Amino acid sequence: MQAVWLENNQISMRDVPQPKKPDEALIKIRKAGICSTDLELVKGYYPYTGILGHEFVGEVVDASDSAWLGSRVVGDINAVCGLCEACRNGRSTHCENRTVLGIANRDGIFAEYTTLPLENLHRVPDSVPDEMAVFAEPLAAALEIQQQIQIKPTDRVLVVGAGRLGQLIAQTLALTGCDLHVVARHSLQQNLLTARGIRITSEAEIQPHKWDIVVEVTGSSEGFNLARKAIRPRGTLVMKSTYKGDVTVNFSSIVVDEINIIGSRCGPFEPALRLMEKREVDPTVLIAEEYSLKDALKAFEKAAQPGVLKVLVDIKG
Amino acid sequence: MQAVWLENNQISMRDVPQPKKPDEALIKIRKAGICSTDLELVKGYYPYTGILGHEFVGEVVDASDSAWLGSRVVGDINAVCGLCEACRNGRSTHCENRTVLGIANRDGIFAEYTTLPLENLHRVPDSVPDEMAVFAEPLAAALEIQQQIQIKPTDRVLVVGAGRLGQLIAQTLALTGCDLHVVARHSLQQNLLTARGIRITSEAEIQPHKWDIVVEVTGSSEGFNLARKAIRPRGTLVMKSTYKGDVTVNFSSIVVDEINIIGSRCGPFEPALRLMEKREVDPTVLIAEEYSLKDALKAFEKAAQPGVLKVLVDIKG
Repeated sequence: MQAVWLENNQISMRDVPQPKKPDEALIKIRKAGICSTDLELVKGYYPYTGILGHEFVGEVVDASDSAWLGSRVVGDINAVCGLCEACRNGRSTHCENRTVLGIANRDGIFAEYTTLPLENLHRVPDSVPDEMAVFAEPLAAALEIQQQIQIKPTDRVLVVGAGRLGQLIAQTLALTGCDLHVVARHSLQQNLLTARGIRITSEAEIQPHKWDIVVEVTGSSEGFNLARKAIRPRGTLVMKSTYKGDVTVNFSSIVVDEINIIGSRCGPFEPALRLMEKREVDPTVLIAEEYSLKDALKAFEKAAQPGVLKVLVDIKG
Repeated sequence: MQAVWLENNQISMRDVPQPKKPDEALIKIRKAGICSTDLELVKGYYPYTGILGHEFVGEVVDASDSAWLGSRVVGDINAVCGLCEACRNGRSTHCENRTVLGIANRDGIFAEYTTLPLENLHRVPDSVPDEMAVFAEPLAAALEIQQQIQIKPTDRVLVVGAGRLGQLIAQTLALTGCDLHVVARHSLQQNLLTARGIRITSEAEIQPHKWDIVVEVTGSSEGFNLARKAIRPRGTLVMKSTYKGDVTVNFSSIVVDEINIIGSRCGPFEPALRLMEKREVDPTVLIAEEYSLKDALKAFEKAAQPGVLKVLVDIKG
């Protein structure tokens, strides 16, 4: 089968054997999404060799449990051991022996087929179309914030960055009723937010040291510094992005202001599916363009352009 | 009156007028302690001009409320407005208009007298002698950790650094029943801990990514890196020290491991006094030497020596 292959920071289309793991479900991919992490992997953020991609919706075409056959599914990207200390203590996304779909030691989903353990799969409600379901993974990642910290309806919350993930975070946080503002640079990003009644702000307008919670989604030192400046003493700064290189931090000020910094990664799929089913969030407004699998490399080029939101790859053909 | 004066990073004995603030209590200092923050101020960590020092026990000799006269007291170091957003939301140690005893816009306590608002004062129980009460402020700072985060009896807790504050933190955390280990370099530090049944460990022995909670008390990049290495995914790293300069952090790993980093500063005095009254902690074991006020500069020299714990200055004479 054709697949988007990454090796030595080189991305190419490659003919690879169809995957076969008797203990895992075989999934025929229907649609896939390109995520910033994919683009970072191409840039060499983390050494990975294999099929790229982890955002997908697909159909189970083979499984040890026939009840899954024909099910339209999305899937947790961390395949875990269930036995290590992290797994046994309810932190399975931090499994010490995990493989991660399209990211670490497990082929991803820009291909006709992939495999995942049955326990990773979530059935997609009929009313959630493929172009919405394909956002389950990043929407789950957005919801991880509320899995980690409480957002009070009275909180002043600032989201720094309004790209792919920032938009989904803004949509989910807006549902809490909190006083939400988003720093969005590109006019398309701004328009999507204002269309949903979410307030945008500019760096110049941000009141320093006034925000209860700041979510940093730019993955840049500049974004971190802005977030640090905005957060109030004893506020919580959520780091929601992979960073290129190291960031220099004045920790004395973090100590004096008793700031809480929390890293945030993969989240829960079921609430993501529930919110999409009820149309409480609508990730499809992010879709910039859709390509076929044979044009996947063009899709990656498109996704890497500044300000471009979600690029999809249609694989069912 | 004679006072330890800081100006342009130069410390000297200086004759200054006795303080007079009709709306504050006049306190005759009995004993004072030298803290790492004092030493950092001398090194220029933060520009401060005035009388140094914030750890003290004294006697109220003048006050608008005569009920306080003759009381032996310790005092919160933050003098606050009570009106700003921080004050009105229960975060008065972060008052936007605060002055801080011997640290910011308020003369400190290495002198015969100081003043503080009555609301800052806490009466010292008779059974707590001066040489113990003088530790109320740093012991309160140690307790701030448990004011901010829950330490479970089953938690594996590592304290990196066993100096003045590290010792007090270790003593308080040991009371939780948690599985506590302390990285202590100097033999005196080690002996004080083992004498209390607290387990010491070396950097080489530390299991990476296994500790639920790590408290960093060294104030060095090296200490931070060790703490970062030790903490488990979704663990909490408490930053309990002022840092010299900036620290370089790999935030991608903080995000991937969903680490929680929390800065921690001033804490509650009343529980500190309760624990000393019940002798659940014994800070007096930290006392290295005591000087008279006229020899205060020698006391500062002594306190700056590596491995030296608490140096006191007796002021009542």
